[in-house]
Amino acid sequence: MEEKQFVKEVADIKTNYPQWYTDVVLKTQLADYGPTKGCMVIRPYGYAIWENIQKELDMRFKATGHKNCYFPMLIPFSLLQKEAEHVEGFAPEVALVTKAGGETLSEPLVIRPTSETIICEMYSKWVQSYRDLPLKYNQWANVLRWEKTTRPFLRTSEFLWQEGHTVHATREESQKETLDMLYLYAEFAKNVLCLPVVIGKKTEKEKFAGAESTFGMEAMMQDGKSLQAGTSHHFGDKFARAYNIQYLDKAGTHKYGWQTSWGVSTRLIGAIIMAHGDQRGLVLPPPVAPIQAIVLPIAMHKEGVSEKAQKLIDRLIAAGIRCEGDFSDQSTGWKFNQYEMLGVPIRLELGPRDIEKGVVSLARRDNGEKLILPIADIEDKVKDLLEEIRVNMYNKAKTFMDSRIVEAHNLKQMEEAINGGNFVKAMWCGEAECENKIKEMFSATARIMPFDQTPIDDKCIVDGTKADKLVIFAKAY
Amino acid sequence: MEEKQFVKEVADIKTNYPQWYTDVVLKTQLADYGPTKGCMVIRPYGYAIWENIQKELDMRFKATGHKNCYFPMLIPFSLLQKEAEHVEGFAPEVALVTKAGGETLSEPLVIRPTSETIICEMYSKWVQSYRDLPLKYNQWANVLRWEKTTRPFLRTSEFLWQEGHTVHATREESQKETLDMLYLYAEFAKNVLCLPVVIGKKTEKEKFAGAESTFGMEAMMQDGKSLQAGTSHHFGDKFARAYNIQYLDKAGTHKYGWQTSWGVSTRLIGAIIMAHGDQRGLVLPPPVAPIQAIVLPIAMHKEGVSEKAQKLIDRLIAAGIRCEGDFSDQSTGWKFNQYEMLGVPIRLELGPRDIEKGVVSLARRDNGEKLILPIADIEDKVKDLLEEIRVNMYNKAKTFMDSRIVEAHNLKQMEEAINGGNFVKAMWCGEAECENKIKEMFSATARIMPFDQTPIDDKCIVDGTKADKLVIFAKAY
Repeated sequence: MEEKQFVKEVADIKTNYPQWYTDVVLKTQLADYGPTKGCMVIRPYGYAIWENIQKELDMRFKATGHKNCYFPMLIPFSLLQKEAEHVEGFAPEVALVTKAGGETLSEPLVIRPTSETIICEMYSKWVQSYRDLPLKYNQWANVLRWEKTTRPFLRTSEFLWQEGHTVHATREESQKETLDMLYLYAEFAKNVLCLPVVIGKKTEKEKFAGAESTFGMEAMMQDGKSLQAGTSHHFGDKFARAYNIQYLDKAGTHKYGWQTSWGVSTRLIGAIIMAHGDQRGLVLPPPVAPIQAIVLPIAMHKEGVSEKAQKLIDRLIAAGIRCEGDFSDQSTGWKFNQYEMLGVPIRLELGPRDIEKGVVSLARRDNGEKLILPIADIEDKVKDLLEEIRVNMYNKAKTFMDSRIVEAHNLKQMEEAINGGNFVKAMWCGEAECENKIKEMFSATARIMPFDQTPIDDKCIVDGTKADKLVIFAKAY
Repeated sequence: MEEKQFVKEVADIKTNYPQWYTDVVLKTQLADYGPTKGCMVIRPYGYAIWENIQKELDMRFKATGHKNCYFPMLIPFSLLQKEAEHVEGFAPEVALVTKAGGETLSEPLVIRPTSETIICEMYSKWVQSYRDLPLKYNQWANVLRWEKTTRPFLRTSEFLWQEGHTVHATREESQKETLDMLYLYAEFAKNVLCLPVVIGKKTEKEKFAGAESTFGMEAMMQDGKSLQAGTSHHFGDKFARAYNIQYLDKAGTHKYGWQTSWGVSTRLIGAIIMAHGDQRGLVLPPPVAPIQAIVLPIAMHKEGVSEKAQKLIDRLIAAGIRCEGDFSDQSTGWKFNQYEMLGVPIRLELGPRDIEKGVVSLARRDNGEKLILPIADIEDKVKDLLEEIRVNMYNKAKTFMDSRIVEAHNLKQMEEAINGGNFVKAMWCGEAECENKIKEMFSATARIMPFDQTPIDDKCIVDGTKADKLVIFAKAY
């Protein structure tokens, strides 16, 4: 009964996926709506996931020679205007500080929607010689883009992210950095978030305002819609020319720098929820789960049970596993449901009979499998299982995604495929008009031009002209 | 010669301490001035110190049961106004967002100067039952307080900090939390920053706007001025009443919660620079130094030197020491000066003769001592020395501070003591008028009422009335 009640507390994942998402976010206390329009509060359970994401990414950034720093969040409006496409892209969604310290400012300040402009301004000062290059910096920061329609994690006016900004001596180097960071993101998505992604290049229409080209990774949610999970931009020397970032090369010649920027955000938490969750709630990837194993004492009033449970917790923590226990007076059934809802990868139960037999009962969140394991080497078993769960979660999501990537050779096929919740591969001539038409007709956008460009046809799916671009179209978050 | 040149690049620490500070900050690339008035850019070397500070503090917060979360940076103006003293204290220095998304907002939004208001608003929703208490949350965030006169790290309009916000069931518990966090800060200052502090209670005039009482720690800079290094506020039930934070106790009665907040900021980096630096630049405490040991290969062109130096670096890194090498073509003299300027606690030199003898030459930054050590167990030696340096740096600062805490029994004594660069102990009657008079006369403020209130007199130093409050007065940053 308790079980049914729990499941009922969230909307049906099959018939009302959007409501299921909101219900799960609120019920598991990942986030809450705040008093500021379009902004969310990230509660401890959600923030702990973000901390694990940060730790894993930060380690990868540093291992590849990047350093962290921090730039002001307020940007003089004039600075934003130096790169024409960039200001055009971001001006409509910025928030302006017009008063401060009791006075009206002579020039409004923009809360950063992204930091290229203020960072380029500093780089023009810091980059002087070839010795200063490559310059590979990253910052963890909050940013603000005024949004009309918002949803926790997926789209909020303020969000948390990291933004890497690099300068290189040559175009070849900056191109390599752009792709290196894309591959780093994809590896992280796979191994840490258990999230399969399609990587490739964005169309002109979908690229970052001011970039020469944008690369990205797209993840598939359980409704077949796409979620842009990370982007990496190649600027060429466009910003360097706008902000005058020049270095003296070895021969004594002034040259413009070549730049990249790349970022992922708290949106990834939304991706995890939507890609892995089920009717019983969250299913968290072990590498980012705030609690990897929950220990539930059974028949706690019996002598020795609580002590033995605590000992088990201590052993697992000592082994480096994020483990907690629940010694509250809630019923065992309530606890089972609670930690399933919270997506804890492994549940361990320890009762008088388990203790007698020297075993512990275990349940996996990812597939529901139940095991009885000897307590003697439980640390190794839990570690092995966390790894098994990690691999299994990825494989499951990958199988799902692969089954939903389909080809379309005409608009009728595309319509069916989009409405069926698929990533749709189609040939495109490269004209914005054709891209726009697909958006108008099916509310689907060109998500990515995958690196594997093996053609599936030779004509554009829209206007039938010669086409050599393979594009994945889909509805997107 | 090179040495002299380096030392000349920063102002004289004895005769021009403020300029010395700015010179060191810029020359070591801890920070730079940005294009936004009053805001600084924290460069990688400075940010790495902040990351180490964060790591050490975060560990302590979590070990004492606190959890991290994140609240929106924009606060509706009306929310700020709910607690009268609080809005009065902060309104003059807030920045207002009045336009966003191309439209004028119906209500301006305040960029958080601190987050009590928005956090209390959420707490009034989250705190329902005694089961929800204590609620112990912290956030790492940027805040903005519009400042007229700014200096990197010490006072900037935007700065980075952590702010803890807790709710408790009883006044006793919240009082204990307030002091527990103050002691945690003082322990951290001592053991991590090598910074001795005086802890105690603030006067009414100096307390946080809206708090019932504020406790703090004051550190002494080398000019004898005080720097407020951290504060912990007890709110009683003032904010709970203003924001309606009530819980149902076990007996079924609605009761107001009891609250605290506490914070430290990037200001601590300024404290480290000013408390430990010398004419040759920074002297960084080993626990927060981005580079704890620098390896310099001597006569690099000689066969095997670079390889052996790299091996040494790898060994020290493997032992958990933050170690780097400098294989650039700069002269050895330049490198010596450079890493002294950067405040690296230990310098290791490895040349052909050292290699022949199986030794390494070592120099300590804190006292200039030079040692020749066998390379065989160099990891242990470096670790021991880092610990020795840590203790020595604290003791040195403590001896200095103790020598500059003096008593004053009349205003003439106080004048001399203040002008001599001291923390001045004096008795005070408790009247704001007397406190203000000292500020007018000597530009000194009541820094703290230390916990040890052993009286040194029975009359107020200003008006001669009966006095039982021992106060430390000093000029302050």
